[in-house]
Amino acid sequence: MSETYSIKPVGVIKRLNNTQNDVSALIPNAIIEVFPEYSKAILTIEQNSHLWILTWLHLARRDTLTVKPSRNNPGLPSFGVFGIRSPDRPNPIGMYLARLVKVENNFIYVTDIDAVDGTPVIDLKPYYENDIIFSPRTPNIKPVYREKLKKLFLKQAVAHHQEECPGLFMGIRMAILAEEILGHINSPDLGILVEGSPCLADTLQGLTRSRLANPPRFRFINSSSRAQSTWNKKGELLQISALRRINCKDFWELPDCEIMKYSLP
Amino acid sequence: MSETYSIKPVGVIKRLNNTQNDVSALIPNAIIEVFPEYSKAILTIEQNSHLWILTWLHLARRDTLTVKPSRNNPGLPSFGVFGIRSPDRPNPIGMYLARLVKVENNFIYVTDIDAVDGTPVIDLKPYYENDIIFSPRTPNIKPVYREKLKKLFLKQAVAHHQEECPGLFMGIRMAILAEEILGHINSPDLGILVEGSPCLADTLQGLTRSRLANPPRFRFINSSSRAQSTWNKKGELLQISALRRINCKDFWELPDCEIMKYSLP
Repeated sequence: MSETYSIKPVGVIKRLNNTQNDVSALIPNAIIEVFPEYSKAILTIEQNSHLWILTWLHLARRDTLTVKPSRNNPGLPSFGVFGIRSPDRPNPIGMYLARLVKVENNFIYVTDIDAVDGTPVIDLKPYYENDIIFSPRTPNIKPVYREKLKKLFLKQAVAHHQEECPGLFMGIRMAILAEEILGHINSPDLGILVEGSPCLADTLQGLTRSRLANPPRFRFINSSSRAQSTWNKKGELLQISALRRINCKDFWELPDCEIMKYSLP
Repeated sequence: MSETYSIKPVGVIKRLNNTQNDVSALIPNAIIEVFPEYSKAILTIEQNSHLWILTWLHLARRDTLTVKPSRNNPGLPSFGVFGIRSPDRPNPIGMYLARLVKVENNFIYVTDIDAVDGTPVIDLKPYYENDIIFSPRTPNIKPVYREKLKKLFLKQAVAHHQEECPGLFMGIRMAILAEEILGHINSPDLGILVEGSPCLADTLQGLTRSRLANPPRFRFINSSSRAQSTWNKKGELLQISALRRINCKDFWELPDCEIMKYSLP
């Protein structure tokens, strides 16, 4: 099949310079400008909380077929570009899942876009219920650097819990510690028992993708007097207890020893 | 911006004629043939349980900006094409989320593709943890026809629970009844209490996207002696109790009165 097709940009990404991005996953960091001739196509778009933004990665290479995702983890092997989200690929289409914050005329304010300023937008699609696979199997290519892992888990936790609160911040910090000690927390052989607030439990269920069954990995005991998670991987037990409530600033700045204690397996 | 870009197909969709599609969401219904010159790009792709398949919808119209999704629900208003997954759109890119069943050479067997045979494939991307938004806000454009609703909920339930079992089948049938009586079951003002097996609870948590907190909508009491769900929407209570276990065939064929009893609000 030697036919080719022609793509025309329908908009462009404009980055916002927003220093608060480091501390919140809920603040917009980009505007999608939809060109006026396509403005009818965004009718009703504000009914969606999340959007898929498809872009044309105009700076990417099209002759690359395999890459090493070394920016986040230098130890990883090569992946085919269809098995990873590399910008370099035969048709350099970028796919971003963003939270829609507000729509003003043909400008859509969104979070979570890391495309460069000026990237052409080629399509917008609503995020649907059918897009949710609660516990997909993927290669574990999490960042090995803690600050990057914090940002990744914050994004995932907010996607599940939908707000930033003390239970969410504590849940993420517990999950980071568990990931560092036990490895991949989304593994089918890892179980978790949470005793504490529903917010803490909700955050940890979201981050670990632990279901009630198939396999049974998640248990919750509602408690207003403690905040504790007990992690079980192949019989190794790790118990983490919160020493205090933390806010967003504490989440980013305080060392583990000031916010929790834990018993090593 | 008047520049255009050229897309070249990297593969093609071949539909499998699979009559079992009606009774299981886990059986492959299509093969992605990746053209030999791109076969290196699928290296490691089998590490993923799910893939995004981007296609070029070569039969679609490119001048359509608004549509009515009347196939599933004749009563709906018009949507802009960027607010819906219409094939007709300025750049007719199709986006399918499929379960990867197996890879044989440059042939990838997948489920859940409803593109026509011969549709060009333009990109493949792995499904990532970051793609999960547990409870997105979307327009409620569910099908009004029960057989279509069964297929939709089966797909969503399997995406959450990952296997077909009696608890899953019963959970879906309860959810369909609740949707028909109370309306949108993913609404933030609907709460659910499940007494029964973890599989039943897991399925109903997945279908309703009910979290433990923010807002608190989900409660579970593990019980081996009953299978029951109690739905609460603005004080209206709907209790549904299973009369027996059901299998896949029963799920499709038996009327409500043979498998459950319920008290109307």
